Amino acid sequence: VNFLSDNVRGASPEILEAVARAARGSALPYGEDELTRAVERRVSDIFERDCAVFPVVTGSAANALALSVLAPPYGVVYCHEQAHIQTDECGGPEFYSGGAKLGLLPGAHGKIDRDRLRAALAGAGIGVVHFAQPAAVSLTQATEAGTVYAQDEVAGIAETAREFRLAVHMDGARFANAVADRGLTPAETTWKSGIDVLSFGGTKNGCLAAEAVVFFDPARAGDFAFRRKRAGHLLSKLRFVSAQLMAYLADDLWLKNARRANRMAARLAEGLDRTGAATFRHPVEANEIFVELPEPALAGLEAEGFQFHRWEPGQSTLIRLVTAFDTEEADVDRLIAAARRLAGTRDP
Amino acid sequence: VNFLSDNVRGASPEILEAVARAARGSALPYGEDELTRAVERRVSDIFERDCAVFPVVTGSAANALALSVLAPPYGVVYCHEQAHIQTDECGGPEFYSGGAKLGLLPGAHGKIDRDRLRAALAGAGIGVVHFAQPAAVSLTQATEAGTVYAQDEVAGIAETAREFRLAVHMDGARFANAVADRGLTPAETTWKSGIDVLSFGGTKNGCLAAEAVVFFDPARAGDFAFRRKRAGHLLSKLRFVSAQLMAYLADDLWLKNARRANRMAARLAEGLDRTGAATFRHPVEANEIFVELPEPALAGLEAEGFQFHRWEPGQSTLIRLVTAFDTEEADVDRLIAAARRLAGTRDP
Amino acid sequence: VNFLSDNVRGASPEILEAVARAARGSALPYGEDELTRAVERRVSDIFERDCAVFPVVTGSAANALALSVLAPPYGVVYCHEQAHIQTDECGGPEFYSGGAKLGLLPGAHGKIDRDRLRAALAGAGIGVVHFAQPAAVSLTQATEAGTVYAQDEVAGIAETAREFRLAVHMDGARFANAVADRGLTPAETTWKSGIDVLSFGGTKNGCLAAEAVVFFDPARAGDFAFRRKRAGHLLSKLRFVSAQLMAYLADDLWLKNARRANRMAARLAEGLDRTGAATFRHPVEANEIFVELPEPALAGLEAEGFQFHRWEPGQSTLIRLVTAFDTEEADVDRLIAAARRLAGTRDP
Amino acid sequence: VNFLSDNVRGASPEILEAVARAARGSALPYGEDELTRAVERRVSDIFERDCAVFPVVTGSAANALALSVLAPPYGVVYCHEQAHIQTDECGGPEFYSGGAKLGLLPGAHGKIDRDRLRAALAGAGIGVVHFAQPAAVSLTQATEAGTVYAQDEVAGIAETAREFRLAVHMDGARFANAVADRGLTPAETTWKSGIDVLSFGGTKNGCLAAEAVVFFDPARAGDFAFRRKRAGHLLSKLRFVSAQLMAYLADDLWLKNARRANRMAARLAEGLDRTGAATFRHPVEANEIFVELPEPALAGLEAEGFQFHRWEPGQSTLIRLVTAFDTEEADVDRLIAAARRLAGTRDP
Repeated sequence: VNFLSDNVRGASPEILEAVARAARGSALPYGEDELTRAVERRVSDIFERDCAVFPVVTGSAANALALSVLAPPYGVVYCHEQAHIQTDECGGPEFYSGGAKLGLLPGAHGKIDRDRLRAALAGAGIGVVHFAQPAAVSLTQATEAGTVYAQDEVAGIAETAREFRLAVHMDGARFANAVADRGLTPAETTWKSGIDVLSFGGTKNGCLAAEAVVFFDPARAGDFAFRRKRAGHLLSKLRFVSAQLMAYLADDLWLKNARRANRMAARLAEGLDRTGAATFRHPVEANEIFVELPEPALAGLEAEGFQFHRWEPGQSTLIRLVTAFDTEEADVDRLIAAARRLAGTRDP
Repeated sequence: VNFLSDNVRGASPEILEAVARAARGSALPYGEDELTRAVERRVSDIFERDCAVFPVVTGSAANALALSVLAPPYGVVYCHEQAHIQTDECGGPEFYSGGAKLGLLPGAHGKIDRDRLRAALAGAGIGVVHFAQPAAVSLTQATEAGTVYAQDEVAGIAETAREFRLAVHMDGARFANAVADRGLTPAETTWKSGIDVLSFGGTKNGCLAAEAVVFFDPARAGDFAFRRKRAGHLLSKLRFVSAQLMAYLADDLWLKNARRANRMAARLAEGLDRTGAATFRHPVEANEIFVELPEPALAGLEAEGFQFHRWEPGQSTLIRLVTAFDTEEADVDRLIAAARRLAGTRDP
Repeated sequence: VNFLSDNVRGASPEILEAVARAARGSALPYGEDELTRAVERRVSDIFERDCAVFPVVTGSAANALALSVLAPPYGVVYCHEQAHIQTDECGGPEFYSGGAKLGLLPGAHGKIDRDRLRAALAGAGIGVVHFAQPAAVSLTQATEAGTVYAQDEVAGIAETAREFRLAVHMDGARFANAVADRGLTPAETTWKSGIDVLSFGGTKNGCLAAEAVVFFDPARAGDFAFRRKRAGHLLSKLRFVSAQLMAYLADDLWLKNARRANRMAARLAEGLDRTGAATFRHPVEANEIFVELPEPALAGLEAEGFQFHRWEPGQSTLIRLVTAFDTEEADVDRLIAAARRLAGTRDP
Repeated sequence: VNFLSDNVRGASPEILEAVARAARGSALPYGEDELTRAVERRVSDIFERDCAVFPVVTGSAANALALSVLAPPYGVVYCHEQAHIQTDECGGPEFYSGGAKLGLLPGAHGKIDRDRLRAALAGAGIGVVHFAQPAAVSLTQATEAGTVYAQDEVAGIAETAREFRLAVHMDGARFANAVADRGLTPAETTWKSGIDVLSFGGTKNGCLAAEAVVFFDPARAGDFAFRRKRAGHLLSKLRFVSAQLMAYLADDLWLKNARRANRMAARLAEGLDRTGAATFRHPVEANEIFVELPEPALAGLEAEGFQFHRWEPGQSTLIRLVTAFDTEEADVDRLIAAARRLAGTRDP
């Protein structure tokens, strides 16, 4: 059973059907088709605001392209030191921006510490020619630690950014997991809290390959369209990405899928906790669990065919478990049962 | 009826089925899955040689990434002045290479003139620090003019390139159209004629979004994998691209689709020729037709709902007609009949 | 005797003295010193307008930095196909701009043909995402062919550029040679004719290494200062460049030096013409002569120790002769005499 | 009296004379002159090894160009978190490398902590496509903290770098200050300790603007010459930089200048220490002093015209004092006396 990542899973049937439907007949290429226009309207509805929306096929492209219109080549984009743009994109933001720096900030549970951000900005030498110039903040929602920023945390970071005239980007590769069941609207989670641009993820949550870069102020998009094209990220048959997004956003599929993933993660965390052998590294607030288990239990689980990431090199017993839009309750329960058995503990 | 481009069409049913099939169960992400491995083996079989194969989703990405491992930032990539990399990719090759130049060469019917290439290289100041340094030649097969290089033409250009130690890239966005029914093997068309790397197109010929960069000497691929990743072109669910390519390459679907497109183009050209009103700009050797028709005929065709590209700005009566893997004979014949009627001429 | 180039010569005594003077005492670094401020005022006086002025040490840096604020990474900078930025800077403009293209235009005697520029712009697809976007025109004054644009030629090109919202750059590596003795003011030659930014050369005309990038509208300079710094072109002891520029601009040294060079070129051209054996490729309007002489004469001159550039590869008898701020009349006359003797002709 | 930096000072008379001497007669441009060749030989003599040597005019250019041949665009260059390349070059290394990252390492007194380097490398995911790839280490000698790495410290860092196949760069903007009076040869300080390439500084130590990039294995220089040219850092009259370097390296001027600066720094530190009011942040081992003094003393010194850098924003009483090749003993003593008086303390 595979808890390695949410990108090891397939796709929702609704997504596949939408692609097949879009394959009939002809349509204008390069995003001039009806489906792509419809995506922009649908996203604007969901976020309660006219947005500029650009479908792309990877989160890395969404992030790097979005940041490339926010930061000059000599700019600094501040982010958490464990942010995906820093640790997992092989220098994509630097490539797309023409050499901007990532300014790395520490912070508990994958969240940027606002005071550290303010201190960094205060000492950054804004306007002084010797120093790379602060240009943007990028925060990840849900975070790389499987946690979710509260609205006032996002708003606080954005406020500090704004004070120094920085733009604010949200990496929402798991945006749906952050929004589902929080009692906040997409608008509240983003532009009402000060976000300028969102990488809105679909791939990890039931799409084949579909993300959207959403500018809440279309003027902010600037020359995004040219940058996407020259990066080879404007698909000729873009309607097949747009078709995915339309199905994803129809009938709240995106939220349904995320709710299922989150519920499975909560169930799994709870079950592991009851073994008495688990130590959680971070609160479980979305669909990722970072947990330590005794090495014999880990080895046993692996031997029984459970798949997950050993998260740190060396002797560490920290693992990451990820649930997805189609994770089965039975698989979760089997993992819990096996962990309980292998950890040598029982429920009271 | 839509003759605007081959990218306005949908996808072959086999491609759609393959994607749906790949959506079942889990698979390792980022190209470590079985399907992606199988693509590399299948391509190697077709080209009769162990190749390094990298699936991507656009031809522009395939071209720019391929060239970025062949040319240094101060390099020159020679190409036809009408090559897609020069005219239609918004500076993609310059972006990916970090600033290499495209050296533009004239040539009849979309083909690089070998003598002009040789003259350019002879005067390029190789090794002299003031001059951008010749690094590669890129030729397009089938060409942007709808023609097909003969094997000795490709081999001649490659020989000249080799003489000056340049690498040779083939933009094969319509490679299938160039190979189908020529009596040459894919190997003969490429590495046996001196090609180092091929952008092997699928999207225009029945895929949703699937291209493969093929290095005929895997060592030549160099750091391609890192460059693809940092460009955001390594899909997490890459198996969905690989699934398309497997279906495309199975049972000669790629050749069947191309044959149909070529046959329809030939039928269309022949029919237009019989009107007596058509002047062909280039020989029709693949699935594109560049033809002049009297303005009243063009206006009439447009009024009747036929779609095609007015190819030049201003008063020009040059149009481009493109056929595709699923173009219907009946649609071709309807266009011919309308053109004949509108051109006011009859078969004898 | 050395007619290879104007950069093979040394420096004017006034320049050397100014550097030595500047070496006394302390001064703020990185251009915050008094001399650098004085350069900005002095240039503004000369051009009759408040300018933003940035000293640098090479013409290539001046050009590439200037263009990098005018053109986005997906931009096109139009220039003559023989412009220095295209032929002699190893891709510098592409590097600094992050991948902009140079759009090459033909034109007699090193001058951009305005009609060709207009045609290129009309067909460039401005605003269309597939195409690199026209951003600037760069013209060279005096040209690489040793000719000088008339004021209405500059103004005409600038007008066409403006019509399409392009910025206009002038590469003035030999600006002094173009201005000296023309009866036009520096202002008329530049911003009054539509120039936005000038690379104002000093090195070839008696400085050690001193150029200035001059923005006639300081707002146009944008982020130039940051770009210069990150390129390593902001010298810590910038006052030593500024000292050169102050001496260069004092007492019309720049014009005196240029007048001498131009006069020597005119004398040389006239003398060669009188041999009856010379064919001039371009009018001689500044300090460069492009001339064909019989091969035996060329070989003889070389054997006697005269140095010049064989301008074309192969059998060509085209050479370039360059005079400079300190070229001696006697040396010019010796070359003329030798050419006359070697060409086997006499004055009547 | 100016203790702001060593770059506020002028130039040694020997340097000025050498430039004036070089201005006589003609010489080949772009580094093909005799002086530039002589610099390469002289540097090779000093370092007891055939080196490839490239004169440039700024330390930032030297660093960025050197690193651009060591690191690919997706590479990581490890350096101290306070290294000049990170804090003071406005993103120059990122620009020149095409987007490489700087991997920041902590360490006492401006020195890279070898264990932290090893840990960073061990966890960097070398060869894994998702991660920017470790490519080089850059250490600064003397450091930005005014300290000097011991030979075994350099050798240890280089050994760790080598273990992971990284190249090692030394930023030697104050190399002379690190070498003078240490009892180690330049060779021992560099390649014998594992350094591959050195930015060898002259500007801060008595030159006008002269640095040299020194590759201890000429093959390692790779395409440096092309990169320097396209960056606009190949001066046409390069002999004027080479002339400075020749004078700098003749008769041990570089060491004499550095000894004087170091001696003045030692005298100044000692004097401040004797006030009893000074707290030194770092050992004083070269020509920079980082010291805290009571705020009234600092304010008093400033009021009396002494110039130095307030090193930290806000309420901090940390200042930096820099001595130079021409600092006068009397000025040092005046500063000491003033500090003693203002600090209200006396020698016992």
